Amino acid sequence: MNTSLIKNTIGKILILEAGFLLLPLAVAIYYRESFNNLFSFLITIAILLVLGIYLSKTDIENMKFGIKDGFGVVTLSWLSLSFFGSLPFLISGEIKSFVDAIFETASGFTTTGASILVDVEAMSQSMLFWRSFTHFIGGMGILVFALAVLPKTAKGSVNIMKAEVPGPTFGKLVSKIDITAKILYKIYVSMTVVLILILILIGMKPFDAMIHAFGAAGTGGFSNKALSVGYFDSAAVDYVLGIAMLLYGINFNLYYLILIGRAKDIFRSEELKVYFTIVLFATALICIDISHLYHSFANLVRDVFFTVASIITTTGYATADFARWPLFSHFVLLMLMFFGACAGSTAGGLKISRVIILFKSGINAIKEAINPRRVVSISHEEAPVPREIVKSAHMYFILYVGIFISILFIISIRIDDFTTAFSAVAATLNNIGPGLAAVGPTGNYAGFSPYAKVVLTFAMITGRLEIFPVIALFAPNTWRKR
Amino acid sequence: MNTSLIKNTIGKILILEAGFLLLPLAVAIYYRESFNNLFSFLITIAILLVLGIYLSKTDIENMKFGIKDGFGVVTLSWLSLSFFGSLPFLISGEIKSFVDAIFETASGFTTTGASILVDVEAMSQSMLFWRSFTHFIGGMGILVFALAVLPKTAKGSVNIMKAEVPGPTFGKLVSKIDITAKILYKIYVSMTVVLILILILIGMKPFDAMIHAFGAAGTGGFSNKALSVGYFDSAAVDYVLGIAMLLYGINFNLYYLILIGRAKDIFRSEELKVYFTIVLFATALICIDISHLYHSFANLVRDVFFTVASIITTTGYATADFARWPLFSHFVLLMLMFFGACAGSTAGGLKISRVIILFKSGINAIKEAINPRRVVSISHEEAPVPREIVKSAHMYFILYVGIFISILFIISIRIDDFTTAFSAVAATLNNIGPGLAAVGPTGNYAGFSPYAKVVLTFAMITGRLEIFPVIALFAPNTWRKR
Repeated sequence: MNTSLIKNTIGKILILEAGFLLLPLAVAIYYRESFNNLFSFLITIAILLVLGIYLSKTDIENMKFGIKDGFGVVTLSWLSLSFFGSLPFLISGEIKSFVDAIFETASGFTTTGASILVDVEAMSQSMLFWRSFTHFIGGMGILVFALAVLPKTAKGSVNIMKAEVPGPTFGKLVSKIDITAKILYKIYVSMTVVLILILILIGMKPFDAMIHAFGAAGTGGFSNKALSVGYFDSAAVDYVLGIAMLLYGINFNLYYLILIGRAKDIFRSEELKVYFTIVLFATALICIDISHLYHSFANLVRDVFFTVASIITTTGYATADFARWPLFSHFVLLMLMFFGACAGSTAGGLKISRVIILFKSGINAIKEAINPRRVVSISHEEAPVPREIVKSAHMYFILYVGIFISILFIISIRIDDFTTAFSAVAATLNNIGPGLAAVGPTGNYAGFSPYAKVVLTFAMITGRLEIFPVIALFAPNTWRKR
Repeated sequence: MNTSLIKNTIGKILILEAGFLLLPLAVAIYYRESFNNLFSFLITIAILLVLGIYLSKTDIENMKFGIKDGFGVVTLSWLSLSFFGSLPFLISGEIKSFVDAIFETASGFTTTGASILVDVEAMSQSMLFWRSFTHFIGGMGILVFALAVLPKTAKGSVNIMKAEVPGPTFGKLVSKIDITAKILYKIYVSMTVVLILILILIGMKPFDAMIHAFGAAGTGGFSNKALSVGYFDSAAVDYVLGIAMLLYGINFNLYYLILIGRAKDIFRSEELKVYFTIVLFATALICIDISHLYHSFANLVRDVFFTVASIITTTGYATADFARWPLFSHFVLLMLMFFGACAGSTAGGLKISRVIILFKSGINAIKEAINPRRVVSISHEEAPVPREIVKSAHMYFILYVGIFISILFIISIRIDDFTTAFSAVAATLNNIGPGLAAVGPTGNYAGFSPYAKVVLTFAMITGRLEIFPVIALFAPNTWRKR
């Protein structure tokens, strides 16, 4: 491990986090909140700066990130972000327990949106702002941000991007990795600014608009309302946020294609077509299944479309209490939870492109079983998919199932209802937030034991970083010095 | 497809089924049952003979079984076996509905042991005998039996064995396939005769001993008692049947090694070691989890050992109502349901050897992610596993998950409880029988809609034949004439 470079980078990340904390501090000042709140942000910023400057002064022996270093720096950054990010909640006393504060912050950064808050509306504005802003930071990834804004990029930074950006492959937009990061962030920020403006235009208060735009952008799902998006009770809000979530679930590379005038090319994207087809089918199936619960067809479609968009993008906003829907609808939603949206987006889950590869692999396995001499290769957008990509999708799936089962195993010691346990793991590992039964859209994670909360926090980070970086940290030879 | 050879073979299978039906007919005569019962067996035998002789007179144009032919003949045989095997239940009126009768018979042949009978003790002896005897026939496979007893083996019969014997690889014991089949059946029958004798020695009535020996041999699980094995309330019975189930869950090739004096070699079997280790660990974990439910340590161990043996071998006999155990124990049992026992045994599930390959693949994926230049191969018993075997285990797993989800999807239209639906699919696809919640050891499948029963019947056959033969039957180019 290139420990000096890792220390140095984490130091910079902590300084960045201090910078981000200036925003909720400004909110606290704007709303004339208690000294307690101001103090909790100031002291956290101070701690981050001291530690960050100390670490970033580490002499770098070697300016190259290897794969292990990429894994190490990403996982350690996310752990430190969650740890230090929880301090304002703890110091202000708005969240009392240490485990709860870490859970809530990790849930924010990983864009999960699972909450331990029993009464979200009792929180102060600045804390609500910080809680939702972590979604925005975590969505595109803080290391990607660091690459975009910090000078002097180390060699092999692509390994950081690979580890932090979700999906089976990471496509560099341009040859320089820091410029790629800049482009991604510009698109991300612009989309979010536009979304905030639209939400204000259709009647939301600016503060609420920011909160919900951050939640949609990171596909996170924290709301400042107990009723989530249902609070606004507005078809315009539901459709704007529903469509926005779906847009953040698209591979950001496609937006780059639009920017450089190759908009036509996006229609060739098989992942995009499958993504929209799934959204369409899932909406139709659930509409049929629950039509008897609604008097108005318009309301039915509106609620189902919003829920499908919220779940497939792993956001987790709710307008309807889908935990009360029948099993078939639950089952469709559970599938969407596992599918997730497109690779290279801010969404969690397996990602549509992996699901496509797995599906085609299954079909090919049958073809080859019938006709063993014929070896069928998988093609994607008319070109054969390289064998390593196919293999890595298979391996990811096998590992994913293994991790899922292991977490369910560990957590089932303390939970007594299968649906609650299963959907809680699905909702955290896939970074969705609400699950079914006790953790449904009207429930929350407050009732879990600290043990379960720690395990689910681990699940959120493992899911966000797509398993490898986190697991690699536990591998015995990761820490051997080069 | 070599349709003439397939027709001919299925004809012979039907004649064999007619032969098997002589046994319950004898039971009906011995117990002086009603004319109705005698008639129902006689008419079924007559139908089978007429149809069987007609089909077996088909002129064979070509004596070679291709892979597709192997798949075709196996799936069609199992469908016909289940169809005609259900006639005695229907004609005698002991099972009233057609769907129920097919479900119960397919559950027997596939050694699932899931039942739609609300009052099993109301059935006549001959029907109970036939119901359990289907386990014995289905355990080792009727086509394997056909190969063992019928003269003139067609070329490519190995494709039939491959399609019918469970597990990722099929090891021919000797160069000739019909001799291999004979050896397997001799071991199978001898073990079962010994088991019947031991059960009688420890106090079971001969009839009960046969019923439960058949259920253990095929790892099926039908009992003639409403309380299943719990009825006998005997530690000796529990331990004898528990150990017997575990022995039937071992790869039969290992018994052959003992027969030819290479008993030492069986200790080299990694699958066997892992199998026993899992049994040990699962027993220990559940004992710890439910110790508070028992006063006596001996009873605790006895019930847990029996349940673990029953579930991992996918038999499904019950002495304790494990549906009332806490979630952690359920979770351990669910894992055992999916693992299943060893390849080449009579058990269902994924099979331990596949689980080993998947586990090692997961570990390797992490190693390779940390160190991409290093390609790690999977070794088994100190020799590297051929790449095709590894790939086929991966593909089997992906297909298996796909099939599992599809069946759950189809069935969830009509079931309203997630645990019931999930465990019903797990219990039928893995050929176990009882699941959790409504289909737990004290429940049954009677309450399901005909739609759900048909889907679950399909799941049982798909599971028993390990997916490929059944799915291949639906592939468009399977039916093209050569």
